[in-house]
Amino acid sequence: MGKAIPNRSEDYSLWYNELVKKAGLAENSPVRGCMVIKPYGFAIWEKMQDILDKMFKETGHSNAYFPLFIPKSFFSKEANHVEGFAKECAIVTHYRLKNDEEGKGVVVDPEAKLEEELIVRPTSETVIWDSYKNWIQSYRDLPLLINQWANVVRWEMRTRLFLRTAEFLWQEGHTAHATSEEAQAETKQMLEVYADFAENHMGLPVVKGIKTESERFAGAVETYCIESMMQDGKALQAGTSHFLGQNFAKAFDVKYATKEGKEEFVWGTSWGVSTRLMGALIMAHSDDDGLVLPPKLAPIQVVIVPIYKTDEELARIAELADSYTKELRSKGVSVQFDKRETHKPGWKFAEYELKGVPVRIAIGPKDMENGTVEIARRDTKEKQTINQGDAVGFVYNLLDEIQQNIFSKALNFKKENTHRVDDYETFKKVLETKGGFIYAHWDGTAETEAKISEETKATIRCIPLDQKQEEGKCIYSGKPSKGRVLFAKAY
Amino acid sequence: MGKAIPNRSEDYSLWYNELVKKAGLAENSPVRGCMVIKPYGFAIWEKMQDILDKMFKETGHSNAYFPLFIPKSFFSKEANHVEGFAKECAIVTHYRLKNDEEGKGVVVDPEAKLEEELIVRPTSETVIWDSYKNWIQSYRDLPLLINQWANVVRWEMRTRLFLRTAEFLWQEGHTAHATSEEAQAETKQMLEVYADFAENHMGLPVVKGIKTESERFAGAVETYCIESMMQDGKALQAGTSHFLGQNFAKAFDVKYATKEGKEEFVWGTSWGVSTRLMGALIMAHSDDDGLVLPPKLAPIQVVIVPIYKTDEELARIAELADSYTKELRSKGVSVQFDKRETHKPGWKFAEYELKGVPVRIAIGPKDMENGTVEIARRDTKEKQTINQGDAVGFVYNLLDEIQQNIFSKALNFKKENTHRVDDYETFKKVLETKGGFIYAHWDGTAETEAKISEETKATIRCIPLDQKQEEGKCIYSGKPSKGRVLFAKAY
Repeated sequence: MGKAIPNRSEDYSLWYNELVKKAGLAENSPVRGCMVIKPYGFAIWEKMQDILDKMFKETGHSNAYFPLFIPKSFFSKEANHVEGFAKECAIVTHYRLKNDEEGKGVVVDPEAKLEEELIVRPTSETVIWDSYKNWIQSYRDLPLLINQWANVVRWEMRTRLFLRTAEFLWQEGHTAHATSEEAQAETKQMLEVYADFAENHMGLPVVKGIKTESERFAGAVETYCIESMMQDGKALQAGTSHFLGQNFAKAFDVKYATKEGKEEFVWGTSWGVSTRLMGALIMAHSDDDGLVLPPKLAPIQVVIVPIYKTDEELARIAELADSYTKELRSKGVSVQFDKRETHKPGWKFAEYELKGVPVRIAIGPKDMENGTVEIARRDTKEKQTINQGDAVGFVYNLLDEIQQNIFSKALNFKKENTHRVDDYETFKKVLETKGGFIYAHWDGTAETEAKISEETKATIRCIPLDQKQEEGKCIYSGKPSKGRVLFAKAY
Repeated sequence: MGKAIPNRSEDYSLWYNELVKKAGLAENSPVRGCMVIKPYGFAIWEKMQDILDKMFKETGHSNAYFPLFIPKSFFSKEANHVEGFAKECAIVTHYRLKNDEEGKGVVVDPEAKLEEELIVRPTSETVIWDSYKNWIQSYRDLPLLINQWANVVRWEMRTRLFLRTAEFLWQEGHTAHATSEEAQAETKQMLEVYADFAENHMGLPVVKGIKTESERFAGAVETYCIESMMQDGKALQAGTSHFLGQNFAKAFDVKYATKEGKEEFVWGTSWGVSTRLMGALIMAHSDDDGLVLPPKLAPIQVVIVPIYKTDEELARIAELADSYTKELRSKGVSVQFDKRETHKPGWKFAEYELKGVPVRIAIGPKDMENGTVEIARRDTKEKQTINQGDAVGFVYNLLDEIQQNIFSKALNFKKENTHRVDDYETFKKVLETKGGFIYAHWDGTAETEAKISEETKATIRCIPLDQKQEEGKCIYSGKPSKGRVLFAKAY
């Protein structure tokens, strides 16, 4: 059996694409730029959704659902928003098909033209703030803390599975508050929720920061983000949280009566993560043999593979496997006992490595003689022979250890590939030879930002929240700077 | 405070619309025919999703996600399907907006016309079977048991919140099997899952049956359905399960190699329920004071309302309420303690009646003196004074009783409004004066079915699965019939 996927060192991009397909995560659909999320990929996304949804609810948010379509005119109401979003999008112009008179299937009925075109939502601020106008009258209605799980469409020319697709799945939180302080606190709180999820569930260390003006969400006053590092040293933005000020409140005339009876515009936030997280998860941890999944997001955490020749052997192994399954499940561990006769143990080993199942228990006739089992962990590929009576406890602890190790490994990788650079020549050299994150001084102007990006393809990922006050000179213009910002090439 | 909603007897239709809006379930959006599902309504839908999703997984299904858009040509591949679905739909023709040269916001860029128009999915058989072609090679790949939770769009001219909207949320199961028997068994199994969910979770008694040919799903060989009765005697189709035969396999060329190495077309099913179930839930149980929710689907099962004058009184009541909350939550009961000072107890009582919270515990100063609490159930409006020490156990049992009672009440209503009729005059009279379900003989022809529907607005809801062999004469044509079918006016 040949190797399922190429090595990362040969072609990182091809490695990613093949891994996504071969591991059964997603594939391209016949519709340009739209993907099919296959059952195994969707099971991981469901785990992400479950955890995030709980975190949102614990912080006081409720889910709701707003229309897929947005009237074209809505986009023009917020001046910056229209520039950012009402460009590459899917536009519904008609509402009926009819049989072709020449018998060539169905054609668009020209009679059924919409008076106003509808845009398939690229993001829902406009249609949601239009509703909020009716939902908010007084301070008693605030804060309004709502989230939506939905599909959105942005017409992308170059697409890649999970990372950039025309249609993608996401959640978008949209909140309204009585004061600027409250809205800002919400913006930061949700950034912390995202960072917590990325680090403690995805095993993905992040840098928290603020976007520069040119990278800000269209319509926001301030955009916060978390940036993570992939194994090729490139950055991937894993989530954003926007402080909208009163921009959408003013665009959609959303006011409230204060306790004192005055009328004020409300303050807003919005925040989102998408199926892009799947791309981050895959690229951050996986290796040349396939996926490496942190146990908290693995649809199957433990697989048991029997090795046998006779039915009697299988029966004895199955008895042990069933007792493991029962015990582990009672501890909340998901287990699969793969006794399919259609595939050999070696094939199964490779398959579960490809699929990133964190722990594999193999049980053969020798194990049965010796009262042992062989336990292999996916992240380090280490195998250990364990007494049968100790296996459940061992596996339970091992899952925790794997979760920790995956994070530590990614954290070390990020540290090793993070550089501080003080001049432009070194900056370009590091980018070319090493890649990774570069902390450097910047003069704070959009011009310099654009020039650096143009010349090197590296962009300012964020102004880190933990930025230290430090006098320095911009690596490009030599002008004074008060702190370093994070540069990297990015997905 | 005026009554929030009109009485059912005055205007059933207005009662429904006002109830949906006033209870905070849903509202119309600025986009024609599309609704906004508000947080309270969405919380009920989430409960439905959770339960159904577990039932699907327990029967071996996995979730996946397929594209929102379907190329127009796909619809023409299955001859019947195109007739049924590729008519009133949302059609994407362009992919870019641009700034209007006359400064009037944004306009559709005529340069950005799609080569082939995309249809916003009204149902996903075509795009899914196109994928199945690549997923299925041999009998080892079967059965393929997949479900999708998604939004779909059917351009409806007359819309009503939840019951009929242009965009709605649903789940659609799509399975592929090696044999006709297996596919038929799957079709029936999913009908049973839907019936189980309707009766045991929604408290909604159903009639299981088969659709007549003219009501069959476009592309199906046989359509199974569950039909429920609303309080105005009209029927509502609450779920359908289709045996597709080899129709889509042939249309999309999906074959598999049998164990013996022969090539065969696979057999298919599809099945779905939608946010329409929300309409059924509301219309089946609610009364003139608001929603009546079965406890299993109530976002808040128990509300505790304090009645007090002083802060000391509130503090003492709060202590008791907190202990109830803790105990009930540990038993899996959702509780809300509403100590808002902005609203009076009477207002809160009315509000929670409107919202259908199954159990209300009121605690006042007299209760604190007497060591009692007042427990009110929403379904019958009965109140009881209970010793404080017995309250938790009482409430826990009461929730079960309410769940049972809501079902029994609906079952009795259905029985009382179900008639057997043997001639057309009586048929018309019963329809006019009593409504409800009518079991009558039919000659089995589409012509008779159409005539009866034209003259009376009643349609054949289904041929019941438990139909008894019984010689009779068609009420319309007088021709022989071997069993009664179910007629009703329907939503």
